Amino acid sequence: MKLWQKEAGNKKEVENFTIGRDPEFDIILAPFDVLGSMAHAHMLTKVGLLTKEDNEILQKGLKEIYFEIEKGQFTIAPGVEDVHSQVEFLLTERYGEVGKKLHSGRSRNDQVLVDLKLYYRAAIRSLVEEATTLFDLLLQLSEKHKKDLMPGYTHTQLAMPSSFGLWFGSFAESITEDMGLLQASFDLANKNPLGSAAGYGSSFPLDRTYTTSLLGFADLHHNVINAQNSRGKTERTIAFGLAGLAGTLNKLASDICLFMNQHFGFISFPDELTTGSSIMPHKKNPDVFELMRAKTNQVQAVPNTINLLLTNTTTGYHRDLQLLKEEIFPAIETMKDCLEMCSFMLKSIKIKEEILQDPFYKHVFSVEVVNELVLNGIPFRDAYKQVGLDIESDNFSPDQSKISHTHEGSIGNLCLTEIQAKMDRAVEGFNFSKIDQSFEDLLS
Amino acid sequence: MKLWQKEAGNKKEVENFTIGRDPEFDIILAPFDVLGSMAHAHMLTKVGLLTKEDNEILQKGLKEIYFEIEKGQFTIAPGVEDVHSQVEFLLTERYGEVGKKLHSGRSRNDQVLVDLKLYYRAAIRSLVEEATTLFDLLLQLSEKHKKDLMPGYTHTQLAMPSSFGLWFGSFAESITEDMGLLQASFDLANKNPLGSAAGYGSSFPLDRTYTTSLLGFADLHHNVINAQNSRGKTERTIAFGLAGLAGTLNKLASDICLFMNQHFGFISFPDELTTGSSIMPHKKNPDVFELMRAKTNQVQAVPNTINLLLTNTTTGYHRDLQLLKEEIFPAIETMKDCLEMCSFMLKSIKIKEEILQDPFYKHVFSVEVVNELVLNGIPFRDAYKQVGLDIESDNFSPDQSKISHTHEGSIGNLCLTEIQAKMDRAVEGFNFSKIDQSFEDLLS
Amino acid sequence: MKLWQKEAGNKKEVENFTIGRDPEFDIILAPFDVLGSMAHAHMLTKVGLLTKEDNEILQKGLKEIYFEIEKGQFTIAPGVEDVHSQVEFLLTERYGEVGKKLHSGRSRNDQVLVDLKLYYRAAIRSLVEEATTLFDLLLQLSEKHKKDLMPGYTHTQLAMPSSFGLWFGSFAESITEDMGLLQASFDLANKNPLGSAAGYGSSFPLDRTYTTSLLGFADLHHNVINAQNSRGKTERTIAFGLAGLAGTLNKLASDICLFMNQHFGFISFPDELTTGSSIMPHKKNPDVFELMRAKTNQVQAVPNTINLLLTNTTTGYHRDLQLLKEEIFPAIETMKDCLEMCSFMLKSIKIKEEILQDPFYKHVFSVEVVNELVLNGIPFRDAYKQVGLDIESDNFSPDQSKISHTHEGSIGNLCLTEIQAKMDRAVEGFNFSKIDQSFEDLLS
Amino acid sequence: MKLWQKEAGNKKEVENFTIGRDPEFDIILAPFDVLGSMAHAHMLTKVGLLTKEDNEILQKGLKEIYFEIEKGQFTIAPGVEDVHSQVEFLLTERYGEVGKKLHSGRSRNDQVLVDLKLYYRAAIRSLVEEATTLFDLLLQLSEKHKKDLMPGYTHTQLAMPSSFGLWFGSFAESITEDMGLLQASFDLANKNPLGSAAGYGSSFPLDRTYTTSLLGFADLHHNVINAQNSRGKTERTIAFGLAGLAGTLNKLASDICLFMNQHFGFISFPDELTTGSSIMPHKKNPDVFELMRAKTNQVQAVPNTINLLLTNTTTGYHRDLQLLKEEIFPAIETMKDCLEMCSFMLKSIKIKEEILQDPFYKHVFSVEVVNELVLNGIPFRDAYKQVGLDIESDNFSPDQSKISHTHEGSIGNLCLTEIQAKMDRAVEGFNFSKIDQSFEDLLS
Repeated sequence: MKLWQKEAGNKKEVENFTIGRDPEFDIILAPFDVLGSMAHAHMLTKVGLLTKEDNEILQKGLKEIYFEIEKGQFTIAPGVEDVHSQVEFLLTERYGEVGKKLHSGRSRNDQVLVDLKLYYRAAIRSLVEEATTLFDLLLQLSEKHKKDLMPGYTHTQLAMPSSFGLWFGSFAESITEDMGLLQASFDLANKNPLGSAAGYGSSFPLDRTYTTSLLGFADLHHNVINAQNSRGKTERTIAFGLAGLAGTLNKLASDICLFMNQHFGFISFPDELTTGSSIMPHKKNPDVFELMRAKTNQVQAVPNTINLLLTNTTTGYHRDLQLLKEEIFPAIETMKDCLEMCSFMLKSIKIKEEILQDPFYKHVFSVEVVNELVLNGIPFRDAYKQVGLDIESDNFSPDQSKISHTHEGSIGNLCLTEIQAKMDRAVEGFNFSKIDQSFEDLLS
Repeated sequence: MKLWQKEAGNKKEVENFTIGRDPEFDIILAPFDVLGSMAHAHMLTKVGLLTKEDNEILQKGLKEIYFEIEKGQFTIAPGVEDVHSQVEFLLTERYGEVGKKLHSGRSRNDQVLVDLKLYYRAAIRSLVEEATTLFDLLLQLSEKHKKDLMPGYTHTQLAMPSSFGLWFGSFAESITEDMGLLQASFDLANKNPLGSAAGYGSSFPLDRTYTTSLLGFADLHHNVINAQNSRGKTERTIAFGLAGLAGTLNKLASDICLFMNQHFGFISFPDELTTGSSIMPHKKNPDVFELMRAKTNQVQAVPNTINLLLTNTTTGYHRDLQLLKEEIFPAIETMKDCLEMCSFMLKSIKIKEEILQDPFYKHVFSVEVVNELVLNGIPFRDAYKQVGLDIESDNFSPDQSKISHTHEGSIGNLCLTEIQAKMDRAVEGFNFSKIDQSFEDLLS
Repeated sequence: MKLWQKEAGNKKEVENFTIGRDPEFDIILAPFDVLGSMAHAHMLTKVGLLTKEDNEILQKGLKEIYFEIEKGQFTIAPGVEDVHSQVEFLLTERYGEVGKKLHSGRSRNDQVLVDLKLYYRAAIRSLVEEATTLFDLLLQLSEKHKKDLMPGYTHTQLAMPSSFGLWFGSFAESITEDMGLLQASFDLANKNPLGSAAGYGSSFPLDRTYTTSLLGFADLHHNVINAQNSRGKTERTIAFGLAGLAGTLNKLASDICLFMNQHFGFISFPDELTTGSSIMPHKKNPDVFELMRAKTNQVQAVPNTINLLLTNTTTGYHRDLQLLKEEIFPAIETMKDCLEMCSFMLKSIKIKEEILQDPFYKHVFSVEVVNELVLNGIPFRDAYKQVGLDIESDNFSPDQSKISHTHEGSIGNLCLTEIQAKMDRAVEGFNFSKIDQSFEDLLS
Repeated sequence: MKLWQKEAGNKKEVENFTIGRDPEFDIILAPFDVLGSMAHAHMLTKVGLLTKEDNEILQKGLKEIYFEIEKGQFTIAPGVEDVHSQVEFLLTERYGEVGKKLHSGRSRNDQVLVDLKLYYRAAIRSLVEEATTLFDLLLQLSEKHKKDLMPGYTHTQLAMPSSFGLWFGSFAESITEDMGLLQASFDLANKNPLGSAAGYGSSFPLDRTYTTSLLGFADLHHNVINAQNSRGKTERTIAFGLAGLAGTLNKLASDICLFMNQHFGFISFPDELTTGSSIMPHKKNPDVFELMRAKTNQVQAVPNTINLLLTNTTTGYHRDLQLLKEEIFPAIETMKDCLEMCSFMLKSIKIKEEILQDPFYKHVFSVEVVNELVLNGIPFRDAYKQVGLDIESDNFSPDQSKISHTHEGSIGNLCLTEIQAKMDRAVEGFNFSKIDQSFEDLLS
């Protein structure tokens, strides 16, 4: 009577090839799987597919499992296929047949989809929090070093006066702008797929609006095929969001590796944060920033890997989608590590003072001097000619100690308040407290 | 006296190698260059660096050039370096010395940046408009074919009943969700970089908030280094936005190529829209959709190409950035072509009716029958067992003509109104009319 | 006296961020590290930097460690930095000061480089061996199914007669052609970097030709900067080689997923090798091949990830290079798994017979009939016209049971002997036995 | 009677969307199309499908067209679909019906395949020639500057003594190693696909070995499906070959951009080869090398774009493949430009002499001094301690003028002869003269 028995298992070789890294990812998804099941059970009850009594038992059982997961007491037993089966197994073991009623009107496909969406929401939130910490530090450093001038480069050539305040501030503002892609990712993660079943919906009278509300989703993927096709699309969009932040950190790390070179010597870190060589005391290798450069490159490669997994495939679930987790889960962790490590390191950054006082840098002041003459009434062409002649005859000795830039976002007017306001608006846009509230309600 | 003469030209070989495809792109940027100059001149006047009289002449001259460009009468003269020089040259030729005053407080770097931002805003707008046209058509097709059932596949295997209404609707909703990345791109393009000069600001008392307002930008890149570093970042973000839409079209095209295969035969197009073979009358090659699949892959490759151009480079302008135009400009055009062509083709799509009536498809109804029994009071396990036995003994003959799915987003409840509302909200988010108003004001 | 003490350690946070997955990769490198050290010690002895007695002790100690590694008895002790330190530590612990003499004339950079090259050689060898197993099977299947006709598709449209013999044979020949990139990879891996030290050579009178010979390398990277810069370049080239094979398997897997679809039904596998659904007996999900498609996509993504790690970096070692291992080591394993699994599955493949007998396929014979008339003396245009009219008036009933294609590589002349010869030549090109001989000599 | 009339044309919109950039690429393919047709006609004659007289006319007519193409007198007439049709049209116009006999036993698919293979062979040859020119120059520069010391960097930190001879030589040897991937590409391009027809062979008794020989191919793709599937695979392999060379030039360009920075100042070029600023006389922007860095990044992105076009597609021709030309043709040109420009620039490179004499660099000599003491009999640990103390107490003043590295590939022993021999062997491997001979025979 094989039809309602468990089907014959796969050969071991097939098992090994297909399972991949799922067990480790399933542990990450476990709390979200339980929350999704709680919402699903409430909904089944509302539409009359579960009795109130059954639901009460299920909610109790699921809550227990949730807190066991929180305490690190949850594992997937040997021979149990995945997190979904383990939860169902525990419920049935503890409370009997009622555990088996939970899966009505749901398929493995929409169950894992909702787990992933809930996890991604939480992951993006962590990223935004780590990014905010780094942002705050960059803003402080910008304020602290607003008077510390340094040269600005174009074409990697000395060009114009800049400042550490300006340089730190540029990364702060860049982070505010990286929030846009994270918001787009979050919006996609924040849509409820539950009820799409295997990707074609269900003949049960599900109430998808209700689970949307219970899980604190901002909206639902209405169309059930689209809900299923959001698998992959969501991951790719998150990968774009990660790549945005990664691009900002990559440039910061590239700058630091250059500025720590002895020819520049603009930046240094305490010995215990760099790698040296006992016989070459001049050497302070910027290993952390080299690895940050490399790790942010790994992250920036992920959108493309996901593209390759998805492209030219047709509508509907394919097993290929399982491997998305192998790409996006580690990328999220890498990005969190990089943000955290960047804050950790920048807390100890030491910058060289009075750099531009050195006559080596005098030519970066040429445009300043021309503009000053112009502002004092000398026609531009005459001013330009005069400075040019001074430089050519080696009579050019500008005042290298100060710069009077006053417009928005310039050395003398860093607009840190405006930049802070941008970040505040960006973070508010996520409305994370709504998630907290819905989970609190479910677990209360 | 070489300092104020034009510097010695580059060798011809260097010239050829460095100019690339800029001349063709410069023509595209020309109207935006003029608009940017109009705003810059107004601002220089406001802060006292231009007289009111000079500004009047400049505005008149720039407006003339703008309308010449609109009429296709603008070319870059041989020997003139680029669009910026051509505009300045025309102004000076027509109105004398005043033409040379325009460039104060501006560098080539922020001038090209503002041109690009204005062009990108306009380009994203066109994309949104083409996407809206396609969206509208998909929604109509979804409504029209809401009763036309088809099989749904998982693992490319027959799985569950679906419908053409559901299938068309899935792409419509997918497009609403692609707007998120386009909005993130637009927000980045919609920030004013003018006044960042060579990337380190200026000692002139520029009023960047004023040009922001004149050009209808939603905001400015405050930090001037960040403004410069937005070159590349903006293009990459737009490439993400294009890739999002490309992913949706790639899946649609992949589905169509499969469904046009004779084993499926679900979809056909009039002869003049397909490529046939005179001796193989059964053959209707889906060339347009194969090329759409391929072109959307080219577009999906662009974010990575841009990554390679940008990564591991330090702060400040590098000539590498010039090549961004070669990547993003054609990608925008390709995406517009694909959207337009997709609408053009879908207007003539013919779908096969009554597909699921064929007994070949009866097994896709198995879950329906189980659920129906459950809803009629038979315990799930018994229902499941009964259907399983029927299938095994070949006594399974479900009613293959109708499906009663009722929940949100399912075959019987497509939620087209809700999906339309999502699109409306998404498009409103761009606030394109603000751009129209600002350009109208400048040109009035 | 910090100069000759161990330098102050890094902070724990730095430690954690920088160590990455190195410990797991170091175990893989361990046997090669020992072999490299054996060759290095012999060479130091030859040039007079080690005494014969010291060398004898070192060789004895290294051999011991080698066999411990082989028996799985080697671990890196807690607190020991890496495999190199562990080996030196064991030698010193067991044989005293002589262990410390081993590192003269060598830097960590060229030591890890030689370890990697030796590992890559071995890894490519395994890949070639797995590929040969699959190749042999494909050739057998081609021979076995040479009479089993199937339709051939262009534009995913029915086009011409083909056969399973032809189809299996195409992948066999494709594998012979994939050997070219693997050979290019192997040639790069098979060059000795030892003696390049930190990338700028050494003032010791090293004999690099001697270690080249001892380790069975085909050649050396002569220029020491080039030797160092081969880090990354070697990995990228191997990634190209992997991607070549991955492309072949990706197409095979894509074909199988399509041909297992019920509309085609050309291919099936025993139940225990597919995933089914107890209530949908028609469903045989091709999970293994979907995952093979996905895994080969992961592999095909690796060249690009490596590109991002390397591009725009300057000459000389950067810590970024450490992360290459995270990309290429798993890709090698994935590719080996895919090759092995592909052979495992294809051993059980079942193909549908007599496919083309079905009148459904009659039009794929139209060109056959035209050509046959032509070969029987009827002018082409007349033949073409006649067949066209027959098709149009539905009087076209070709003999669908046989095909007489005779030219090289066609259905009736599969050229399996020639394809086998190509593979034999390709495998001989690697000359793997030279490696065996050199390792045997070192360990004897 | 539509069956043997030209089929009804596509709608203009379809036409525009599908034609793409083919007309410009067809002109490039024209001479190869004619050569392929000459071989095909000879073969048809040999197997009795063409009379000797017809063949004589065809050979005469094709030769005429070939020389018209060579003289730039060939264009594709408006309304004519492609290069193949244009050639057939000219033949028929000039010599009557015989022109129409040429296409027997051939399909558009294998015709374009053979055109592409012949073009790729020629293109790879040009690349090898340009690479050889650059290689020769690098070797000369290496010899010329073998005594000019410079610092070597690790982690972008000053590390050890190096020399310009070593640095130039490293790129020379790198180029020899890039030949491996080009050889793998060439081998794939150098296989005859003719006779594979639409990808499933032909019922005509073609002699594919004969056309293989006539066109100077080293071998044929035996299996006809594999021949068709080599479309895409060939392009991807060539893209790998281009990326290999691009990687070498990218590093060279990255080094030069850094070394031209004023803090380094190691390298300069005449004014007419750099871009300056009239008011910042210190500024010599390395635009050519920045663009070389960027262009080599564009080239390095191509393998991935091709991957996306190909992946997850099934066996057989798809129209997607048409777009491969848009990716690989420009990449070949870009790479040729970069190689040529690199040679052009390096002819004028000026290097700074006596760099390491500056006390700023004294620490890079620390390992030299230790090793020297060791070679003079002082135990390593004592030497190390002594030098460490000297450095710490600021008593370290090494002789910074000379270096005595003697081992293979080090500063004092650049092994240029060995590197030259590698290049000679690599170039011989292509056996280009065989191609010349076969074309000469065809055209004689």
